Amino acid sequence: MYRIGIIGDGYTAAELLRLMLVHRVFNPVYISSTENIGTRVDELYPQLYGRSDLACEPTEIEVIKQKCDAVFLALPHGLSVPMVKQLTAAGIKCVDLGADFRLKDAEIYKKYYGLTHEAPEMLVDAVYGIPELYRDKIKSCDVVANPGCFPTSAILPMAPLLRKGLIEPTGIIVDSKSGVSGAGRTPKDSNNFCNVNESIKAYGVGNHRHTPEIAQELSFAAGEKVQMLFTPHLVPMNRGILSTIYSHLRPGVAREDVRAALEAQYNKEYFVNILPEGTFPQTKSVYGSNFVQIGVHTDEEGNVILVSAIDNLCKGASGQAIQNMNLMLGVEETEGLTFAGVNP
Amino acid sequence: MYRIGIIGDGYTAAELLRLMLVHRVFNPVYISSTENIGTRVDELYPQLYGRSDLACEPTEIEVIKQKCDAVFLALPHGLSVPMVKQLTAAGIKCVDLGADFRLKDAEIYKKYYGLTHEAPEMLVDAVYGIPELYRDKIKSCDVVANPGCFPTSAILPMAPLLRKGLIEPTGIIVDSKSGVSGAGRTPKDSNNFCNVNESIKAYGVGNHRHTPEIAQELSFAAGEKVQMLFTPHLVPMNRGILSTIYSHLRPGVAREDVRAALEAQYNKEYFVNILPEGTFPQTKSVYGSNFVQIGVHTDEEGNVILVSAIDNLCKGASGQAIQNMNLMLGVEETEGLTFAGVNP
Amino acid sequence: MYRIGIIGDGYTAAELLRLMLVHRVFNPVYISSTENIGTRVDELYPQLYGRSDLACEPTEIEVIKQKCDAVFLALPHGLSVPMVKQLTAAGIKCVDLGADFRLKDAEIYKKYYGLTHEAPEMLVDAVYGIPELYRDKIKSCDVVANPGCFPTSAILPMAPLLRKGLIEPTGIIVDSKSGVSGAGRTPKDSNNFCNVNESIKAYGVGNHRHTPEIAQELSFAAGEKVQMLFTPHLVPMNRGILSTIYSHLRPGVAREDVRAALEAQYNKEYFVNILPEGTFPQTKSVYGSNFVQIGVHTDEEGNVILVSAIDNLCKGASGQAIQNMNLMLGVEETEGLTFAGVNP
Amino acid sequence: MYRIGIIGDGYTAAELLRLMLVHRVFNPVYISSTENIGTRVDELYPQLYGRSDLACEPTEIEVIKQKCDAVFLALPHGLSVPMVKQLTAAGIKCVDLGADFRLKDAEIYKKYYGLTHEAPEMLVDAVYGIPELYRDKIKSCDVVANPGCFPTSAILPMAPLLRKGLIEPTGIIVDSKSGVSGAGRTPKDSNNFCNVNESIKAYGVGNHRHTPEIAQELSFAAGEKVQMLFTPHLVPMNRGILSTIYSHLRPGVAREDVRAALEAQYNKEYFVNILPEGTFPQTKSVYGSNFVQIGVHTDEEGNVILVSAIDNLCKGASGQAIQNMNLMLGVEETEGLTFAGVNP
Repeated sequence: MYRIGIIGDGYTAAELLRLMLVHRVFNPVYISSTENIGTRVDELYPQLYGRSDLACEPTEIEVIKQKCDAVFLALPHGLSVPMVKQLTAAGIKCVDLGADFRLKDAEIYKKYYGLTHEAPEMLVDAVYGIPELYRDKIKSCDVVANPGCFPTSAILPMAPLLRKGLIEPTGIIVDSKSGVSGAGRTPKDSNNFCNVNESIKAYGVGNHRHTPEIAQELSFAAGEKVQMLFTPHLVPMNRGILSTIYSHLRPGVAREDVRAALEAQYNKEYFVNILPEGTFPQTKSVYGSNFVQIGVHTDEEGNVILVSAIDNLCKGASGQAIQNMNLMLGVEETEGLTFAGVNP
Repeated sequence: MYRIGIIGDGYTAAELLRLMLVHRVFNPVYISSTENIGTRVDELYPQLYGRSDLACEPTEIEVIKQKCDAVFLALPHGLSVPMVKQLTAAGIKCVDLGADFRLKDAEIYKKYYGLTHEAPEMLVDAVYGIPELYRDKIKSCDVVANPGCFPTSAILPMAPLLRKGLIEPTGIIVDSKSGVSGAGRTPKDSNNFCNVNESIKAYGVGNHRHTPEIAQELSFAAGEKVQMLFTPHLVPMNRGILSTIYSHLRPGVAREDVRAALEAQYNKEYFVNILPEGTFPQTKSVYGSNFVQIGVHTDEEGNVILVSAIDNLCKGASGQAIQNMNLMLGVEETEGLTFAGVNP
Repeated sequence: MYRIGIIGDGYTAAELLRLMLVHRVFNPVYISSTENIGTRVDELYPQLYGRSDLACEPTEIEVIKQKCDAVFLALPHGLSVPMVKQLTAAGIKCVDLGADFRLKDAEIYKKYYGLTHEAPEMLVDAVYGIPELYRDKIKSCDVVANPGCFPTSAILPMAPLLRKGLIEPTGIIVDSKSGVSGAGRTPKDSNNFCNVNESIKAYGVGNHRHTPEIAQELSFAAGEKVQMLFTPHLVPMNRGILSTIYSHLRPGVAREDVRAALEAQYNKEYFVNILPEGTFPQTKSVYGSNFVQIGVHTDEEGNVILVSAIDNLCKGASGQAIQNMNLMLGVEETEGLTFAGVNP
Repeated sequence: MYRIGIIGDGYTAAELLRLMLVHRVFNPVYISSTENIGTRVDELYPQLYGRSDLACEPTEIEVIKQKCDAVFLALPHGLSVPMVKQLTAAGIKCVDLGADFRLKDAEIYKKYYGLTHEAPEMLVDAVYGIPELYRDKIKSCDVVANPGCFPTSAILPMAPLLRKGLIEPTGIIVDSKSGVSGAGRTPKDSNNFCNVNESIKAYGVGNHRHTPEIAQELSFAAGEKVQMLFTPHLVPMNRGILSTIYSHLRPGVAREDVRAALEAQYNKEYFVNILPEGTFPQTKSVYGSNFVQIGVHTDEEGNVILVSAIDNLCKGASGQAIQNMNLMLGVEETEGLTFAGVNP
């Protein structure tokens, strides 16, 4: 059994606790909070009632070092860097669910997050945690930058096409639709029920923080700088991200190469489903699960439309975090994550 | 044209503005706020975009006296009393959408709202504003206490039965289900989308503030103290209250007298529909409208089940407030309120 | 007063009835049905309870000719053509809410709807009913082809840019998100609550019937054939369409020309709001209303992102139909349509 | 490994398949259908994509006898009786998720379901499958009548109080609120999204089929005939039942005995949580899980209000079915059911 710590008590922390209830070798022994110190997690999250005796503690690195073999950090940006530095120095594996280690370029981090990165030298070794693309690196690293939810939904379908040079690296459009849990647990106008229910809206048009993260990974896949647009939308549902992604075939590429590339990349992947021709995913098929479903459409004009569905809190956050930690600790990659989506 | 003021900028204020857009003689000329001074109402409430040039002002009684012929107060409890006192002294008709003038007994007010009432002498003259029950008094009063949303849904169906002595004044159960807009605009845990969506819960079990208000009016109708239970529930929808109300026929009363009493009371009422035998309402039939729909069931054992549906922000708040103000100012009672529910 | 007939009893018929309740000169005197002959409309649509004595009749042209001055047709495609032919021959103005008169090219109609058009000669004179773009023609025509809901949301924002040649006529992407009422009243898998709620999906990818309709009108605006993609999505809400539309500035065009063109086109339009810079619409701002809200974004690379919001049943169907009929009968264009969106 | 058959392909069948994906000894080998013969289950239920190779077969008893060690029947009422008769004769354990074996009195079955029971003699031996109340009988029986969803939510909280004679056996009111999946997969008006969303309604007032089932079990618990009312309501959510249950203390009974009786009954039960004083459940705490949460309120007048929350498809159907089958086959009772609710 591994003794697992969680720093932070938001929705992704709750999801980590839920997932570890059925994980055979991860035992959550510590959770920290700023606002809820002393509160039992099953009071904060009544779905855990009677299933956990953990209560939120203050965040003390020395305590964590003693109690934990590995740590998930689920914090607002800027707060993870100093902790990860100390924890890894003590030999503790870290999966950071925040944004601090995702962008390789500290300048871009500063531009989008408004902070000077405190340990830019660590950005080289932190691994961007999509196991299906970076499995080997994840197995041997100390810090995984767990991807953002929107980036996970965009990079998984697009990376194989860019790696093989099938599509143009320009004019890519990622139009994403997210459930409200992505807005976090803290009450605010943008997650107030009556502001969200029976409505849909675009937000962060042209400047959402996940834009450079998607661009970075698509550029890595393409081997050149990719030009893309990303527009997120807020949908009245708790969970789920659907991304509709538009791109163009490169001249001379056959339409069927698109599906072939995706199947070649993912056919042996447990968590990725490339759906049959003419079938497109709905988010509820992966509700509460770590699966990704991808539908593929091409047309005679060379347009490529990929549609991907994930659960933003699971494959888009805590599920992928456990998948990463499984790899880092030498546990079976799918441990604790084999259940299917809750539907209806 | 009457120059209308609104004190407060929450959901009921927004609904007043929406309703007055199609009111032929009420012209909103003033709205006050504490948090949003200087902000245009169509920025706060984009459904009003381009339809109103009002911006929120500070609450200044002298300004209100100059600008307004009549005023709606939509404030947290405790704040209306001093304002209503000054406004009525200046001859300005007031409809208070808050709780300050609803309870005739200042002791009960103190028990449930935790405040010593500052002007208990005014409680005698303030009229409880259900026009279908107190129309004549409303026409000639200076202050209407606009009823709570749950009480409106419970009193309208039950008062006629109690007035005629058809049902026992004991063992009444009001089981109510409300949309989330009743929780107000301020973001908090209880209106956070992910806490509410895909879930239902009871709240305020045994101690909700609308309990004494319902009990007061049912007791007035019965001519004796009524014993009842009230349990509200939170339903994942923006608007609507459905109340399922259980009571017992008095010995010797015929089942058909129940329907007859309701029809006798309401057949000529524009806003109240007594549905045919075997038909029960859904809240969406009155969504956004000032109508009330009531279904009636009795059985051989003398059980009476009434089910009522209202829109909590309209007949349960701002619509009824305008209906009251129409009466107070001698305007046609239905002015501005004749549209039907939005469905689907 | 005009005596108005409605052929069909689905959601758009119900919305027509709701809207005409507050219309001062349109009096609905006739509604026909196939499945619900003899059923009162307030039984089918309980939001109308007590507000209408109409019951569904069989569809008989001679009866309609006698009873009605003007007719709305709300029928599945293929059924309107013979009726409109007879009605207009009798001097009765027709607004067809179906698809039969929208496409000017009977071949494209056949390709997308699978039917040979029975009166292709009528396609020339039928006017595509977006009043903001074709007002004068609508005033003097006999048949209005009421636009599809998605097309309304796409054409209104895009036509002014194409008319002025500001954007490229190629590479346009219309990514639309719709509430479920667009799927109609007949129960089926795609509108079954548990298949839709807590989920979002794309549908009709690459082949939705509204594609040629949008393309036709954008091409008319551009004066040349436009190349575009359209992808609709199903969102768990009753009403509303949000369209996010991606296009590219033509070389040499200034970014600010985009907003200027939209404002020039729509500043005097009652129902169209061009939102301020940085503000984007949500569908709930126009819920139940005939308004359109449009947000505008451009970037340094020449990308143009327009986001539009309408109510699919109102401006996207029955509201626009009444707006058209107002024009055809010489009534004030906004009559019966001045109310704002229901929000929250 | 046990080879498991499922007869029927509706929502409860899909939930059985979902649950068995993480069950270590139940291997679903057979599923039958009438409408979808030949269709893969992962096409019907895309949450199972890539997780199951089963396709729907016709219902043939001989095939089932060969292929299966135990069978779940998930059929409309009336269809299970002949099958269960043949299967148990062949030594195959049966859990019937339908209504055919729940009511001990074939006359009441006929009254509520309109059918003459074909094997009333089997009603004696069939065990009503609430393991927390009938565990020992379930272990040794051949046929479990899996309880209805509403009855599960009402019987679990009330049986202990009636068994101990703490509350009056008259005047009990069960006011229940259910998600829409309870209405089944077949599209119909009552599960059409736009008829359900943004609305709540009562249905089956005074005559719902679950009434006699609840009454039977409460009467068994009380040792005398219980008099009760049951009113179900439809709530716009996929899953979940909340039951608010009103009763009265018997004279001389202390308020604290209520909580004590519930804790005594359930403190060692894995799936039942008696929540702390002042805490009431929400359905989302048990979303997708087999848990039951119960809140307790009593007042000085002797009123008792219990509020229970279950997932209607899990503890209210398929989860409890697996719990029962685990007991029947000698498997650990909680196997496959230990995961927590999905929240948010």
